[in-house]
Amino acid sequence: MNIREATKEDWDLIWPIFHEIVNAGQTYAYDTNTTKDQAKKIWSEAPNKTFVFEEGGAILGTYYLKTNQAGPGSHVCNCGYMVSSQARGRGLATSMCQHSQKMALELGYKAMQFNFVASSNEGAVRLWNKLGFDTVGILPKAFNHPIQGYIDALVMYKWLQT
Amino acid sequence: MNIREATKEDWDLIWPIFHEIVNAGQTYAYDTNTTKDQAKKIWSEAPNKTFVFEEGGAILGTYYLKTNQAGPGSHVCNCGYMVSSQARGRGLATSMCQHSQKMALELGYKAMQFNFVASSNEGAVRLWNKLGFDTVGILPKAFNHPIQGYIDALVMYKWLQT
Repeated sequence: MNIREATKEDWDLIWPIFHEIVNAGQTYAYDTNTTKDQAKKIWSEAPNKTFVFEEGGAILGTYYLKTNQAGPGSHVCNCGYMVSSQARGRGLATSMCQHSQKMALELGYKAMQFNFVASSNEGAVRLWNKLGFDTVGILPKAFNHPIQGYIDALVMYKWLQT
Repeated sequence: MNIREATKEDWDLIWPIFHEIVNAGQTYAYDTNTTKDQAKKIWSEAPNKTFVFEEGGAILGTYYLKTNQAGPGSHVCNCGYMVSSQARGRGLATSMCQHSQKMALELGYKAMQFNFVASSNEGAVRLWNKLGFDTVGILPKAFNHPIQGYIDALVMYKWLQT
C-alpha cells in the first residue's frame, strides 16, 4: 500500500476513476457531465491536498482534503474518496480514510465532515460509522438518484482531536 | 419595501453591511478579515443571484441565492441574508427570506438549505423555524465563536415545492 500526495502527472490516471463514479450520478454531488478539465479543478486544484493510492504504478484510489467552511468553521475539514471499480472490496477506502484523518490532524484540523452522503450508499455509511463518523444530519430528498429518485442525503461528522 | 436584484454599482453600499457582520465573526463562516474584493466575489459574483433591500436610496439588507450542491443535489438552493445594524428588528430578514423562497421556486429549485447556522444565533434559528425551516442537522462544535468558543452549528432545510 502506498498513499502519497498526487502530482500533476497523476491526473490522467485519476480522471478515469473520477469520470466513472461521477458519471454514474449515484454518489457524488458533481454534475454527471463534468469534463476532464472541470474535474481537475474540483478534485486536484481547489482542495488543500489531493492524494492517490498507488499499487505497481497503477492508481487505484484517490482522495482530497479541504477546509469545509472558512472563518469560524475553518477547524473542520472535508474529504472525498474514490476507489476504482477494479479495486473495490479490498479496504482501500478504509486505508484512505484513516490516512486522511491522520493528515487532517497534522494539518491542524480538529474535525472532519462529509456534507452529502447519499443514503442509498449503504456501504459507505456503514464504513464511515465503523471509522468513527456519526450521522449528524439528514437532508430530506436532497439527493436526486438516477434510479431511486429523490432520496435523503446524510451529513456525517467526526471530532478528530482527542 | 423594495427588494431588487443587485447591480454592480450597489457593491459599495453592500460592503459595509458585509464587513460589519463578517468581521464580528459570530454568524457567518467567512474569514473575519475578508477584504472588499474577496467579499465581492463571495457575495456578488459566485452566487446565481444577489438581491438588495433598498429604502430611499439606502441599502439596508442583502441576500444571495445559489445552488447548494451540483449534479444530484442541484435542486436544492442555499441563501445567506444580511441586515444592516441600523435596520434590525424591522422584519427585513423575514421579507428577504420570503422573497428568496419565491425566487427559488421561480428559478426551478425544490428546496432550500442553510448549511451553517451558529447555534448561538437564536434569533435567526427562531425566525427560520417560523418561516418553515427545520433543523435537520447539528454539527458538534463546528462553529468557533469569538466569545463562546466551539459551539454547535445547525443545518436547516425547507422543502419549497408543494
